[in-house]
Amino acid sequence: MEYKILSGIKSPVDLKKLNSDQIEPLCEEIRDCLINAVSKNGGHLASNLGSVELTVALHRVFNSPQDAIIFDVGHQCYTHKLLTGRYDRIDTIRTEGGISGFMRPGESEHDPVVTGHSSSSISAAYGIYKAKALSGEKGTAIAVVGDGALTGGMVYEALNNAGEKKGNFIVVINDNKMSISKNVGSLARYLSAIRSRPKYHRFKGRVEKFLLKIPFIGKYISRGVFKSKTIIKNAIYHTNIFEGLGFNYLGPVDGHNEKVLENIFTIAKNQTRPVIVHVMTKKGKGYKFAEECPYDYHGVKPFDVNSGANSGGGNDFSSAFGESLCALAEKDSRICAITAAMTQGTGLADFSHKYKNRFFDVGIAEQHAVTFAAGLAKGGMRPVFAVYSSFLQRGFDQVIHDAAINNVPITLCVDRAGFVGEDGETHQGLFDTAFLSQIPNVKIYAPSNFEELDIMLKLAIYDNCVSVVRYPRGGEFLNCKDIKYSNEPFSVYGSGKTAIISYGRIVGNALEAAQKLDNAAVIKLNVLTEIGKPLIDELKKYDSVFFFEEGIKHGGIGEHIGSLLAESNIDCSYKHIAVDSQFVEAASVDSQIKKFGLDTDSIIKTVKGE
Amino acid sequence: MEYKILSGIKSPVDLKKLNSDQIEPLCEEIRDCLINAVSKNGGHLASNLGSVELTVALHRVFNSPQDAIIFDVGHQCYTHKLLTGRYDRIDTIRTEGGISGFMRPGESEHDPVVTGHSSSSISAAYGIYKAKALSGEKGTAIAVVGDGALTGGMVYEALNNAGEKKGNFIVVINDNKMSISKNVGSLARYLSAIRSRPKYHRFKGRVEKFLLKIPFIGKYISRGVFKSKTIIKNAIYHTNIFEGLGFNYLGPVDGHNEKVLENIFTIAKNQTRPVIVHVMTKKGKGYKFAEECPYDYHGVKPFDVNSGANSGGGNDFSSAFGESLCALAEKDSRICAITAAMTQGTGLADFSHKYKNRFFDVGIAEQHAVTFAAGLAKGGMRPVFAVYSSFLQRGFDQVIHDAAINNVPITLCVDRAGFVGEDGETHQGLFDTAFLSQIPNVKIYAPSNFEELDIMLKLAIYDNCVSVVRYPRGGEFLNCKDIKYSNEPFSVYGSGKTAIISYGRIVGNALEAAQKLDNAAVIKLNVLTEIGKPLIDELKKYDSVFFFEEGIKHGGIGEHIGSLLAESNIDCSYKHIAVDSQFVEAASVDSQIKKFGLDTDSIIKTVKGE
Repeated sequence: MEYKILSGIKSPVDLKKLNSDQIEPLCEEIRDCLINAVSKNGGHLASNLGSVELTVALHRVFNSPQDAIIFDVGHQCYTHKLLTGRYDRIDTIRTEGGISGFMRPGESEHDPVVTGHSSSSISAAYGIYKAKALSGEKGTAIAVVGDGALTGGMVYEALNNAGEKKGNFIVVINDNKMSISKNVGSLARYLSAIRSRPKYHRFKGRVEKFLLKIPFIGKYISRGVFKSKTIIKNAIYHTNIFEGLGFNYLGPVDGHNEKVLENIFTIAKNQTRPVIVHVMTKKGKGYKFAEECPYDYHGVKPFDVNSGANSGGGNDFSSAFGESLCALAEKDSRICAITAAMTQGTGLADFSHKYKNRFFDVGIAEQHAVTFAAGLAKGGMRPVFAVYSSFLQRGFDQVIHDAAINNVPITLCVDRAGFVGEDGETHQGLFDTAFLSQIPNVKIYAPSNFEELDIMLKLAIYDNCVSVVRYPRGGEFLNCKDIKYSNEPFSVYGSGKTAIISYGRIVGNALEAAQKLDNAAVIKLNVLTEIGKPLIDELKKYDSVFFFEEGIKHGGIGEHIGSLLAESNIDCSYKHIAVDSQFVEAASVDSQIKKFGLDTDSIIKTVKGE
Repeated sequence: MEYKILSGIKSPVDLKKLNSDQIEPLCEEIRDCLINAVSKNGGHLASNLGSVELTVALHRVFNSPQDAIIFDVGHQCYTHKLLTGRYDRIDTIRTEGGISGFMRPGESEHDPVVTGHSSSSISAAYGIYKAKALSGEKGTAIAVVGDGALTGGMVYEALNNAGEKKGNFIVVINDNKMSISKNVGSLARYLSAIRSRPKYHRFKGRVEKFLLKIPFIGKYISRGVFKSKTIIKNAIYHTNIFEGLGFNYLGPVDGHNEKVLENIFTIAKNQTRPVIVHVMTKKGKGYKFAEECPYDYHGVKPFDVNSGANSGGGNDFSSAFGESLCALAEKDSRICAITAAMTQGTGLADFSHKYKNRFFDVGIAEQHAVTFAAGLAKGGMRPVFAVYSSFLQRGFDQVIHDAAINNVPITLCVDRAGFVGEDGETHQGLFDTAFLSQIPNVKIYAPSNFEELDIMLKLAIYDNCVSVVRYPRGGEFLNCKDIKYSNEPFSVYGSGKTAIISYGRIVGNALEAAQKLDNAAVIKLNVLTEIGKPLIDELKKYDSVFFFEEGIKHGGIGEHIGSLLAESNIDCSYKHIAVDSQFVEAASVDSQIKKFGLDTDSIIKTVKGE
């Protein structure tokens, strides 16, 4: 499908040339284009539909790349990509070799930094802003953050640092009342209070009317406005949290009125102090199904545009976890569940309804989640924090300092462990085995299928230490379905002079490979910690040992075993196949597994020495 | 010295029995006792002197351990220790086998959790509070946080989660206008604004008068007060950040008037909503030298009580780093320095004066510091973030997500790497080599002395990747002074059939040991990353290889090398001596090095197989 206006925009310069009456049709084209692209490849839909006018207005008012615009998380930057020379490649989004679903500097000079995790954009943008100020370069920096990101502590660290007395650093709050699902906590209530105060309703109309009447001289606001800018300020609120943190505060304004946005951004651009612009948007705007169920359309698989139907999630590790946890929680009222704004993604939706008072969505706050869990455990509860592997990186210090040193019985259910596919570098779950196994008092379980997950989850919850259960994104591998749980730290399948060690879902490939090889046994690690001595005793039986690991090599379990082998003086060869010193770009999970030599065929070839 | 009142207090129950006229003399005794204890063993002085009345009042109003009181960081919990049965052992504070300088549950049921890092107490206390609520146990939880801790993002994650509509969770802000040094950022200005509003001064007297006249019935406030509690509320401020976050706000009140504190805590205890009590204290209160220079008396070495003189810092790695950085910054205006509230501790005081506009104290905000540095680097600067090893754990995700994936040229100067001595478990710098070496695009330098630090710092700043320079607490080891910098990734000293590998300050011990051993060479790692291939080639020359590592074993550099050895099929024995799966308690650095077999004698014994 050809989009008449959109296809003519090769850069923000072209966007600025459009007449104001072309903007609404452009936004319609963008929405249509987004819905089509995401329906094919999957991706983030609702957040992108909500930020179309916001992004258009930003690029009409500011001059990217001279003005650095950073979209927090980046899951709402598709419109930005369309307007900055990537319209021709939008069909390749989130595919191997295609453009990323997040910001990526390698793609365009208009992407200042890689994004993917929440609440980091203000820090990065403020760094770029200060660098410009120090070197005398032109331009400013703008961070665009969702209200969900405001539940992440990093935002306050950045605001505390950036709330200067002078300068023109800009933060745009894209407030759709949602994090990934409904936004939670007292700050969400606070934002809601701002929006619902009678003052707001009384003055909203007046302010927007005023904004639309601003006398502009070219791109600049006339002096008269600066004198009367108090009208805007007074119309809204004198004191709020953001002003307390040293920012001028403008808003809230309608995030789907592009003209209003252009004008308020122009005012923001002309401030001599740091500014927060509070913009109200509707998640999923313009696509019926997404407007109705915005969290179902936050991150989606390919779907049918007309019916909204997608292939559905359902039978994956996350939902298996959720089911198992609900069953355990029914019998033990000490079991609590914690999520960092990922109720759906981590499979906790049922739990959240069934055990409301034991369910805690703490917002995008992995640090707090870990320490809060430690506190619950100290108070006698058995808390389970379900979190994506790459997001748990945020809670590393807390796992050490608040959980492991205190040696409290919390369970970390690490979802999306291993390759995650199309989300790319920032979301890969490749570090958790390395960073968690180095921490004393931590036990790590690695189930290969749902049955093991169920049993190991129960064991983990009743361990008297920090326990981790890690499992991958998606469903069971077919070749893992028949694996039976064993009570031992590792299980041995078959016999021979070659040992193939692995854990998690790669065990299925190892078993398949061993069947096709002569003389090879598979050693499946059920637990990744404290396995040294018995495993080394087992390895004495073999001439050659191979360790296939879906994780980072440096610091991984395979290095631990390799080093123990070296210390043991066993005379066998050793080879450790893992992700070696690199970040892994977007592709399908199957492709990633193959690329790093962890599929059945690659295992066979490696063992054969081919 | 015998303290008449203090020595009679075996638990908070005894404290509650005192008459109100015994409180002032008690506080005097406590201050005297604190000054004496810290003058002998070193430790945190100024913060403890500032929180004497605060702690006494807390223990007179609340019932520990039923009410869990958590002191954030814990560096102001000495009075708490004195009042909870540890008076007899105060002389052993921060010594091997003695009581800890922070909270430690192993010592007393009155220490709910281990503390040591900043800004985590609200999360832990809220967890304990919710566990009590869920299980129907009596009591509440109180987090005592400094204003410095409010610059850490975790606090906002916790407040956002804890700002409930009902319940009686309590946060006490101990506001001394200081973090470790002068508190920074917009929040500090905000707190200052609260304190200086005319309204405050007008009503302060009235409020405190009121507080002192509250009609109490036993331990409980009369009903009349609840009706008139609006007097307090109205007297202070209707709206501030904390109320925005869902808390009732009480204060600010004089933190050295114990009676006022008792009464405001009693009011807090009787609220049906979460409360923040804002208490104003003076850091160093009651000891002239500490009052005058509170940051010099934040963490101190042993000192003379009468003159205030201590043995001084000066010639340590931190100050050597500071000097080197200043010299480099003079020649290159792109070099910036960042600290997370540790200007003095990291040796950046001179830099902060000389290059004011390129110096950034971001508060206790390691996450922001890393990402802000990444932003500065993106903007063309060469930022250096100086941070203690154990505090950099807070920035782990940011090093991966914002620095390494973006592959920006930032330098992390990791101070206090290795054993830190008397600060104990929470402050040990034993994880950085493991958690940093696993991250792609990161290069790690390990200087053994000041000269190497100087040269490596320069190299790191001009590397086009994330570079780390790690160095220990304290000064050069004598046996390291003569080591000359080499441009190679590792240096070989001597020859023989035994190789002793090490890095950092342990190299000096290895060299000494090798001199006393026959036939042993020392391999000093200058860089800890990307050394595999050439190092393995070197190791082919030896029959036996020993790796002595001042760091965690699991995931450490020694495991990496061990595993490469196993993969290389070199026929030599290997032994890796490091800290194996445990946290390390307080003792002198020398004692810790010895305990883990890293001193010269232990190295000799290990190599000899004794």
